[in-house]
Amino acid sequence: MYLTPKYPKDSITTHTDFVLPGETNPLNNLFGGELLARIDKCCGITARRHTRRVCVTASVNHVAFSKPIPSGAVVTVVAKVSRAFNTSLEVIADITVEDRETGEIMNAGSAIYTFVAVNDMGTPVQIPEVVPETEDERQRFAAALRRKQLSLILAGRMKPHDATELKALFTE
Amino acid sequence: MYLTPKYPKDSITTHTDFVLPGETNPLNNLFGGELLARIDKCCGITARRHTRRVCVTASVNHVAFSKPIPSGAVVTVVAKVSRAFNTSLEVIADITVEDRETGEIMNAGSAIYTFVAVNDMGTPVQIPEVVPETEDERQRFAAALRRKQLSLILAGRMKPHDATELKALFTE
Amino acid sequence: MYLTPKYPKDSITTHTDFVLPGETNPLNNLFGGELLARIDKCCGITARRHTRRVCVTASVNHVAFSKPIPSGAVVTVVAKVSRAFNTSLEVIADITVEDRETGEIMNAGSAIYTFVAVNDMGTPVQIPEVVPETEDERQRFAAALRRKQLSLILAGRMKPHDATELKALFTE
Amino acid sequence: MYLTPKYPKDSITTHTDFVLPGETNPLNNLFGGELLARIDKCCGITARRHTRRVCVTASVNHVAFSKPIPSGAVVTVVAKVSRAFNTSLEVIADITVEDRETGEIMNAGSAIYTFVAVNDMGTPVQIPEVVPETEDERQRFAAALRRKQLSLILAGRMKPHDATELKALFTE
Amino acid sequence: MYLTPKYPKDSITTHTDFVLPGETNPLNNLFGGELLARIDKCCGITARRHTRRVCVTASVNHVAFSKPIPSGAVVTVVAKVSRAFNTSLEVIADITVEDRETGEIMNAGSAIYTFVAVNDMGTPVQIPEVVPETEDERQRFAAALRRKQLSLILAGRMKPHDATELKALFTE
Amino acid sequence: MYLTPKYPKDSITTHTDFVLPGETNPLNNLFGGELLARIDKCCGITARRHTRRVCVTASVNHVAFSKPIPSGAVVTVVAKVSRAFNTSLEVIADITVEDRETGEIMNAGSAIYTFVAVNDMGTPVQIPEVVPETEDERQRFAAALRRKQLSLILAGRMKPHDATELKALFTE
Repeated sequence: MYLTPKYPKDSITTHTDFVLPGETNPLNNLFGGELLARIDKCCGITARRHTRRVCVTASVNHVAFSKPIPSGAVVTVVAKVSRAFNTSLEVIADITVEDRETGEIMNAGSAIYTFVAVNDMGTPVQIPEVVPETEDERQRFAAALRRKQLSLILAGRMKPHDATELKALFTE
Repeated sequence: MYLTPKYPKDSITTHTDFVLPGETNPLNNLFGGELLARIDKCCGITARRHTRRVCVTASVNHVAFSKPIPSGAVVTVVAKVSRAFNTSLEVIADITVEDRETGEIMNAGSAIYTFVAVNDMGTPVQIPEVVPETEDERQRFAAALRRKQLSLILAGRMKPHDATELKALFTE
Repeated sequence: MYLTPKYPKDSITTHTDFVLPGETNPLNNLFGGELLARIDKCCGITARRHTRRVCVTASVNHVAFSKPIPSGAVVTVVAKVSRAFNTSLEVIADITVEDRETGEIMNAGSAIYTFVAVNDMGTPVQIPEVVPETEDERQRFAAALRRKQLSLILAGRMKPHDATELKALFTE
Repeated sequence: MYLTPKYPKDSITTHTDFVLPGETNPLNNLFGGELLARIDKCCGITARRHTRRVCVTASVNHVAFSKPIPSGAVVTVVAKVSRAFNTSLEVIADITVEDRETGEIMNAGSAIYTFVAVNDMGTPVQIPEVVPETEDERQRFAAALRRKQLSLILAGRMKPHDATELKALFTE
Repeated sequence: MYLTPKYPKDSITTHTDFVLPGETNPLNNLFGGELLARIDKCCGITARRHTRRVCVTASVNHVAFSKPIPSGAVVTVVAKVSRAFNTSLEVIADITVEDRETGEIMNAGSAIYTFVAVNDMGTPVQIPEVVPETEDERQRFAAALRRKQLSLILAGRMKPHDATELKALFTE
Repeated sequence: MYLTPKYPKDSITTHTDFVLPGETNPLNNLFGGELLARIDKCCGITARRHTRRVCVTASVNHVAFSKPIPSGAVVTVVAKVSRAFNTSLEVIADITVEDRETGEIMNAGSAIYTFVAVNDMGTPVQIPEVVPETEDERQRFAAALRRKQLSLILAGRMKPHDATELKALFTE
């Protein structure tokens, strides 16, 4: 079956929300678990929009928090698909926070998720390819393959020697 | 003091999220209170973005729910400022729901909020005017004045006779 | 089918609760969305008690917040039916807040909701009439008709010229 | 200092609310912890209303759940003070659930709490006496003393031999 | 049917968690209702582990809060079964709080719950006996019988005269 | 300053809890964001216990969900420190789920977090070393270094050529 490839912009998801006092940690910053929940849902919606399938979170590959987000701040999570691999796909979320007075937008972290698309029986199903358009999308598309290889190695399902693209990082 | 007018698009806010089972009513649809909370926050962020001030919710003028939103659905709230009145502003939220298989977007309701911008002392402060650009924005801009007059009449702070634009609806 | 009319007191609902820190906005006052959720449930219970049917929120007609409610306050929402219209009914909630030391009760806002009663197929069904008893109930009963007309006009389902009671406000 | 005694009705608190799906246990009944939270707040408001002081929960003496409360039910918690002891007071909550079709009210349990009233330094302060009016209030007033004695014995702060009223239960 | 008796350690349950700002009362201490919810779940897991049956909370016999638990604290609830009675069992939870700098563990209260084990029809079913091992477990095992008798008396299902173990407290 | 090294067991944290219906996703399994929140808090407590300092989440290095966790399940998160690096430390959480009837424990995933310990000024401070005891702890201790190198490479703060231990994976 051939599925029409899609652009990342076709499934982009935006989630802008306040940090309420009930969502903070004891330092009065956004509680990490609450931020992870927002990212999880935002990436999950992008995965569904790209595949039009039920998507199951397979792993959270990396989440970096670059600055604490204080109570009262406006936080935006934007999730875009970076690459599809037959039945799985990688989604990257960028987190930004907005200065209350000036409106300046600052980077606050990013997260990389992997989802698997399944049918009603829970069997993985083929999904459309991703066609990167911008320079940033192309870089993330390329890096996604190295991350996939690294993930397979860590899970013991690929030998480091066979991870051609990843290995090149260390041997060139 | 002269404040540079702004376009509605300058402060538009988008909030896309799932309906989780913990957010439903006993009919397994999105609980009205949870939807109102999402709308409240989304409109509040738009109010702050337009004014760069602390904005206090003065009233919810009208909320219409046009269809129930089932558990598992993807709901999007988009809030845009429709008109500013010296120290207050009207923000309108449109709610849409997305079909899981086809991705079709359906209208699920709308909401109209009024906020007042205040300084640190809680005193209302002047805010930028709104410059509507699209046909839809212009219609909402005009209707906002009639809603403002209606609101003043209901609060006993304007005589029906003086509500020129609103009165025209009934006497023309 | 004739349904025995009921008094507003037959379905009155009272909900008294604290404002916990986890329910506040960044100004440490009760978060608007949380208050709307409490009102929504309280009005919904009154609608069910009056109709003994499943009631669906059709619209929030007006909510006014007259004063911020601080963390730690005791808030009471009292919901009463104001008028029934064949298959729909209007419910009004009054919000009060209680001074911690003196016990003095202060008005903090009000809300007007419209519900539709449905059977198991989702078809609107006839409901009992409301018989107002007190002077306040009679005023709200009369005003409910004007609000109904206004609502139909705004939805494009009634011509302003036909809204006799509402029109009288502007032309007398 | 003499404080004017109060009637139980002067501080009675009513909290009526739905059981939402997000508040249930895996059997789709109201989760016990959520019910305890509602009771806790309702009793705490009654304690504050009787004393007009900050009241700290000292103990939960007994909570009986007489029937499971299903998702979608309307639950009412009514809290009344039963007796005051110099600086502490006992508050009893009665829980009822309402049949959706018939409106019939059924008992679903009860809870007995003890609070201590404190000043800003956290020191216990004297509170008004309770004057029971109804037969039910008088019975609970009498039983409160036996519960107090039992509590002191269990805490090792009273000898069984000195608990005159409680001892009478076993020796008469 | 003979069921192999079990030790309390076979079903012990530990729940360690922070106090987040969204879980506090207006004094910035852990809200009582939230603590009761944690205890309820922890005891419920122990009940299930001991019985391998669905267990329904029959009553909360006693909960004592010995010190307020501030926002940011680390709280541990440990639940152990104290005694089984044919189809019901008593579970005791001990609550401790941990000093942030020194790591010192302090007692913060305890709770006693009674559960009934049921089959799929909701009928009470026989459960394994509890074999206490430590001195503390033996004391709680003995006290559980007196509490059971007290509970039956308060419910009017046992005459004080027949509560041999409890009566001994007052007559010896 | 010399800080006494600690064993992983000195700061181990256990968090056992039910999956309530309000914590599920639309497939009635534990919502990923809720699980991440539990892991986040559990690892954070271990980080504090090892360092006796305020610890800030720097990154979530990897989270794998190996099986869905259904509503009603008993889930246990156990967090242990794997290695300390001057001012940062790696904490690994293992997630297990318990069969309701048999009590069998099944692996449901794992997570790797990195925290930085800071003083009151937010400046990173030195922390105690970790001394692995078991074979599993020693393996995780060794792997933590390779993950640290990978993390520095991905952040552009280390050249692949200098990541001796990580490079060995690909070149040996």
